[in-house]
Amino acid sequence: MFLKAKKIDISTGGPLIALLNEKDAALLDLNPLDRIEIKGKKHKIIVAVDITDKEIKNGHIGLLKETLEKFPFKNGEKLKVKIAETPRSVEFIKKKLDGKELKKSEIDEIIKDVVENELTEIELTYFVSASYKGGFTDKETEYLTKAIIKNGTKLRLKNKIIVDKHSTGGLPNNRTTMLIVPIVAAAGLTMPKTSSRAITSAAGTADVMETLCDVCFPARKVEEIVKKTNACIVWGGAMNLASADDKLIKVRHPLRLDPEGMLLSSILAKKAAVNSTHVLIDIPIGKTAKTTTLKEGKTLKRKFKFLGKSLGMKVKVMLSDGSQPIGNGVGPNLEARDVLYILMRDKKAPKDLEKKIIYMSTLILKMVGIKFAKKKVKEILNLGLANAKFREIIKAQGGNPKVKPEDLKVGKYKYKVKATRSGKIHFIDNKKIAKIARVAGCPESKESGLYLEVKLRQKVKRNQLLFTIYSESKEKLKYAKSFVKNTIKII
Amino acid sequence: MFLKAKKIDISTGGPLIALLNEKDAALLDLNPLDRIEIKGKKHKIIVAVDITDKEIKNGHIGLLKETLEKFPFKNGEKLKVKIAETPRSVEFIKKKLDGKELKKSEIDEIIKDVVENELTEIELTYFVSASYKGGFTDKETEYLTKAIIKNGTKLRLKNKIIVDKHSTGGLPNNRTTMLIVPIVAAAGLTMPKTSSRAITSAAGTADVMETLCDVCFPARKVEEIVKKTNACIVWGGAMNLASADDKLIKVRHPLRLDPEGMLLSSILAKKAAVNSTHVLIDIPIGKTAKTTTLKEGKTLKRKFKFLGKSLGMKVKVMLSDGSQPIGNGVGPNLEARDVLYILMRDKKAPKDLEKKIIYMSTLILKMVGIKFAKKKVKEILNLGLANAKFREIIKAQGGNPKVKPEDLKVGKYKYKVKATRSGKIHFIDNKKIAKIARVAGCPESKESGLYLEVKLRQKVKRNQLLFTIYSESKEKLKYAKSFVKNTIKII
Repeated sequence: MFLKAKKIDISTGGPLIALLNEKDAALLDLNPLDRIEIKGKKHKIIVAVDITDKEIKNGHIGLLKETLEKFPFKNGEKLKVKIAETPRSVEFIKKKLDGKELKKSEIDEIIKDVVENELTEIELTYFVSASYKGGFTDKETEYLTKAIIKNGTKLRLKNKIIVDKHSTGGLPNNRTTMLIVPIVAAAGLTMPKTSSRAITSAAGTADVMETLCDVCFPARKVEEIVKKTNACIVWGGAMNLASADDKLIKVRHPLRLDPEGMLLSSILAKKAAVNSTHVLIDIPIGKTAKTTTLKEGKTLKRKFKFLGKSLGMKVKVMLSDGSQPIGNGVGPNLEARDVLYILMRDKKAPKDLEKKIIYMSTLILKMVGIKFAKKKVKEILNLGLANAKFREIIKAQGGNPKVKPEDLKVGKYKYKVKATRSGKIHFIDNKKIAKIARVAGCPESKESGLYLEVKLRQKVKRNQLLFTIYSESKEKLKYAKSFVKNTIKII
Repeated sequence: MFLKAKKIDISTGGPLIALLNEKDAALLDLNPLDRIEIKGKKHKIIVAVDITDKEIKNGHIGLLKETLEKFPFKNGEKLKVKIAETPRSVEFIKKKLDGKELKKSEIDEIIKDVVENELTEIELTYFVSASYKGGFTDKETEYLTKAIIKNGTKLRLKNKIIVDKHSTGGLPNNRTTMLIVPIVAAAGLTMPKTSSRAITSAAGTADVMETLCDVCFPARKVEEIVKKTNACIVWGGAMNLASADDKLIKVRHPLRLDPEGMLLSSILAKKAAVNSTHVLIDIPIGKTAKTTTLKEGKTLKRKFKFLGKSLGMKVKVMLSDGSQPIGNGVGPNLEARDVLYILMRDKKAPKDLEKKIIYMSTLILKMVGIKFAKKKVKEILNLGLANAKFREIIKAQGGNPKVKPEDLKVGKYKYKVKATRSGKIHFIDNKKIAKIARVAGCPESKESGLYLEVKLRQKVKRNQLLFTIYSESKEKLKYAKSFVKNTIKII
């Protein structure tokens, strides 16, 4: 059947969709979400169908923005349209939903189709449901991870030893990466670190690093930076390391589903993509962190180690205290300041963050067999070698290597939250801290966020400052203030 | 936050969606598919969000067609937008996905939100997955059915005994309803039959009945028809008997999922909505029917009876032969002809369909305690009482009561499929028969379809006519021909 193309100025943000009039759909025996193949003069493409009785007239086919990017057609162009077979991966998703274990080739096919936008959101949702409900066997997780790696970009680095780290997250600040990378690189190790942006937090490492230099580079440019400085701190999202993963995350969001197999593969696929040989995983455990119980943490630890092994990586897992934010600043500029304070040995350096990164850097050095690791890490920090290395990285990533903490501004609108009575800090809600910072403008507004003045178990007096909220916008600050309730509890 | 409304000339066919610019979305801390409440001068509404960086400018909100229907706003109108709570039903869906049993109030809430378009397709998909994977307990199926009934339309009929029937389907033709209804009504019973249109078949009962009279009536008009004639044969879809069910079917389609609990509730909710007291369920079993094994059929039988009981209905279940089409014609007009041939005692009447409807009508009469049921059914048929009753129903539904089989035309383009060798008919593929008829134009084109000349185990000679395909369009006929392979096998 031939139909006339009609451009529709809308993007679905998801799978490719074509709109057909119900009469044409009937002629082709199509139901909503069935697939069609569209053939133009030079290209062909497979898309899912939505059926309408009004928007698109008989004899026309409506194509949305995403399709145009992949398939350049002209308004009014005559396109050949026919039924396309359902991808075989849909069968495999059904198989998994039926509780059967998937083979390597089947998982490969699913992930290939995810990356190539062959699956609709509904089909992806069924895949996530199946993985969540039935779980993945260790083998399936391995295949999934390998498929994600295969269908993403890989860095071409020839170093025999490449170290890496990951925190499963949930704690505000906890900006360990920006400190561990320069320390470890100053110790002579290679650490091509890719980080994420904030999803529900106030700032991801990529958002904070971006206050100092560029973080978006294609893979080939990242290789150059790493060859020059032994390290990098870039945004993984710009490199397409695991695009299958990004697509699955979208449909996981509405029910906040974290199927364990997908969480594991998501993390280690990105490590494998940069050729990591030694990986330290930090799992903070706390009531308002991502992992809430020790039992959960231990299961995750075992699975990380198993999956790492199957990918040929040495994985060390540490369970850490996730009961409160690590560091004082929350928000891009405020967190970058904390990092610089520590590297510059300033008295404003947050002690908890400093302690944690010394511990983690030491573990990484030990993993690759370096002796007197702790002493070495402290020397690197105290002699300014980490600071120098960090500025070398900033320069390589196009930033100003002479940046000072004060160069990083904070929002001019502020609000001080004080203790309503004297007592001892009993509870800090990580999620609410993040929420306040986000509502104040994080992560888009670099200058917004909050600065914590107290830590758990600390004694406070009535009217003592607990934290200050900063925002670039009066309206946002007002909005943020309304979220303050029960963030920090005193007994 | 206040945003300016912008109409977008697109319909998603599904849940209500608003498009926000990424900057505004960030300010409200929204992720794709989060919900917002939009408040205009007189109305407010809750919709899901999609986020864009181009289509919608900062300060604007794009609203799609479906939203306009529910929420009349003006282009450029200032609307108050704020984050809305996720409906509690999303939590309950998560609970079910976690393998826990749902309470009555929880299922009620889910179905209410389904009917009111509060849930996104992704959330609906999770609900279907959860039901498919974990299954429903008998109790949950009961609650689901009752919730679907409660959230749909009910007929107001006061008859003490109301009979009904349902075939689980999968067989071409099998047009039993159009014969059983007039027989049973002629016997003095009330049978307000609602039927479906074709989804994957060549024609549903509603499509076939529509060749003779109107089938779309609001519930109040259906009540009048039933009061007048003791019966009706109408399209259930026009009556909104179980709109929750229709919405769930859409997301079940891509993976062709039929979670048993949803199948059961879908059928019996519609029976309860017309106040049925005695229901006969026919489950055809065959390799290419919907139910493929006797074991499956027996489980389904037990569940139908159980659910019927909890709804206060007497349910009888018969397992029948589903190895081949019942009747000769396939397609709206051709099937209507078969029905008329039987009622008019014409020699062209298909014997298999005649035998089946005598059997089924007898069972229904027996269920309500009528004696000499089989004799009575045969008399009603042979004395022309069923024929007269059928024409009474046609008239009440606005059709021509004097219609003759020859008035129902068949497509002028035809193609005869002949035996390539002599032998015995060994296999007829129900699904392929349906597919050929659909590609020839069914169910939209009433005159298209095919006419079967042979039955299973029948001996045929080389070149003997197996079936004829009819179409109104030369192009469609050509297309249908290419689907003929392996439809009927001879050994």
